[in-house]
Amino acid sequence: MEIAYYGGEFIDINSKVIPIQERGHQFGDGIYEVIRVYNGKLFLVDEHLHRLEKSAEAIFLSLPLSLDELKSLMTEGLSKSQLKEAEVYIQITRGIAPRTHYFPEVPSQLSMTIKAARAIDPTKHKNGISVLLLEDERWKNCFIKSLNLLPNVLAKQKAISSGNDEAIFIKDGLITEGSSSNLFVVKDGILYTAPATNKILHGITRSAVLQLAAKRDIDIKEVEFDVEFLLQADEAFITSTSVEVQPIAKIDQHSLPTPWPITMHLQEDYKKLYIQS
Amino acid sequence: MEIAYYGGEFIDINSKVIPIQERGHQFGDGIYEVIRVYNGKLFLVDEHLHRLEKSAEAIFLSLPLSLDELKSLMTEGLSKSQLKEAEVYIQITRGIAPRTHYFPEVPSQLSMTIKAARAIDPTKHKNGISVLLLEDERWKNCFIKSLNLLPNVLAKQKAISSGNDEAIFIKDGLITEGSSSNLFVVKDGILYTAPATNKILHGITRSAVLQLAAKRDIDIKEVEFDVEFLLQADEAFITSTSVEVQPIAKIDQHSLPTPWPITMHLQEDYKKLYIQS
Repeated sequence: MEIAYYGGEFIDINSKVIPIQERGHQFGDGIYEVIRVYNGKLFLVDEHLHRLEKSAEAIFLSLPLSLDELKSLMTEGLSKSQLKEAEVYIQITRGIAPRTHYFPEVPSQLSMTIKAARAIDPTKHKNGISVLLLEDERWKNCFIKSLNLLPNVLAKQKAISSGNDEAIFIKDGLITEGSSSNLFVVKDGILYTAPATNKILHGITRSAVLQLAAKRDIDIKEVEFDVEFLLQADEAFITSTSVEVQPIAKIDQHSLPTPWPITMHLQEDYKKLYIQS
Repeated sequence: MEIAYYGGEFIDINSKVIPIQERGHQFGDGIYEVIRVYNGKLFLVDEHLHRLEKSAEAIFLSLPLSLDELKSLMTEGLSKSQLKEAEVYIQITRGIAPRTHYFPEVPSQLSMTIKAARAIDPTKHKNGISVLLLEDERWKNCFIKSLNLLPNVLAKQKAISSGNDEAIFIKDGLITEGSSSNLFVVKDGILYTAPATNKILHGITRSAVLQLAAKRDIDIKEVEFDVEFLLQADEAFITSTSVEVQPIAKIDQHSLPTPWPITMHLQEDYKKLYIQS
């Protein structure tokens, strides 16, 4: 059963609970996390909560509960939902107050949904996805997992409308990341990804994959690279909580060579990581 | 009486009407306008509705009602509120749907609040405000009046926290606009403001002031200018629906010379414009 939480209680996911003058609704003044549940267990939950705390600090937002309390609440919700394969979405906003740009002195508000996990298309996981290169039009602080997602939404829609699966962003000639994923490239046995600066989201799956690559003694370079380097990749893949590790077959209609041994090893390693957790 | 509108009906402004999975709440996936009501009349309402339409087009959003229907709805709400000096806030989002970045195929959602207008501090209107210069960290499409307002919120709060009234943005060394206003400079009798590109909101008050200046035969230059030019201004002021025309007395603690004849004339002209409307 899919359920939600708002205003201190568990509710039906379609309940009307938010007033118009909520800062999530009027300003996108808040932050969020999406946590995957595998076999009834919250995966990498401490990492997600740590990032939630960092996002909150970056926008001067007080969390309404401690990280331990948030974890307990998610666990309680998960138990109520009886879902084993799920996605927990948790969002904190600066609260409910008459609309002013400056911060109101009101409590922050927590919302949560717990839903069945979206299935990953096994064909895409095996045969790869197509991506569209687009200019990165986002703001300067993409490390904050904020609710200001309109540029990501527009880019994702442009990708889907043109028959692709994901948009990959280019900022000042350099690749940053996907609209809802991080990007990796394999070239001559070395794994490349953009460094964890303010230009990208510091993905939890990204970190996990870097650790898995290190365990395999794969050389890692967290450096910026351009479009030409991406197009000449031996392999490329995206990572996110929802898509895990997903190979890229085509970039702007340019096919990458096959096979993708390192990508597939990391995809497998990641699967083992959550099966064993 | 302050009232609101959502889901096709007029409601109490504090009513809980929005589900968690509303794209306004989860993505800031929507647009808005704020329209001032003077003496019971919607001021420059056609200009605001025209901009709303432009914003909608820019994010590929269908308006749920025609502009005429939106105007009728605002008029109906205003009549119900019985307010004579009011602010109408109108917001359209991409609707209610399970969370995905790409566009869902659901109807867009309209919310509206009608509240008593916030009084303008007469001292600030006469003696001017203090502004703080800050880096413009926003995205590339600031002409869209979207709900992605976190950078504006953070900048405004930084201004207020440091004893200022508004933040003025600098992008690549050039002045763009305020966190919730447009900026004008007077130098040697010429009126300067940033051109209406994608770097700034195309303010309705900004346009009105440009027309008023033209009527006074003031030379106008819509050009980009840098911080040094701003600091050497004879006069500077901000404009917005909420603050109208407001002189700037201090920029980063640097006092501008007095008096401000052109600013004060335009402030007066703007007042006449809405008194006569």
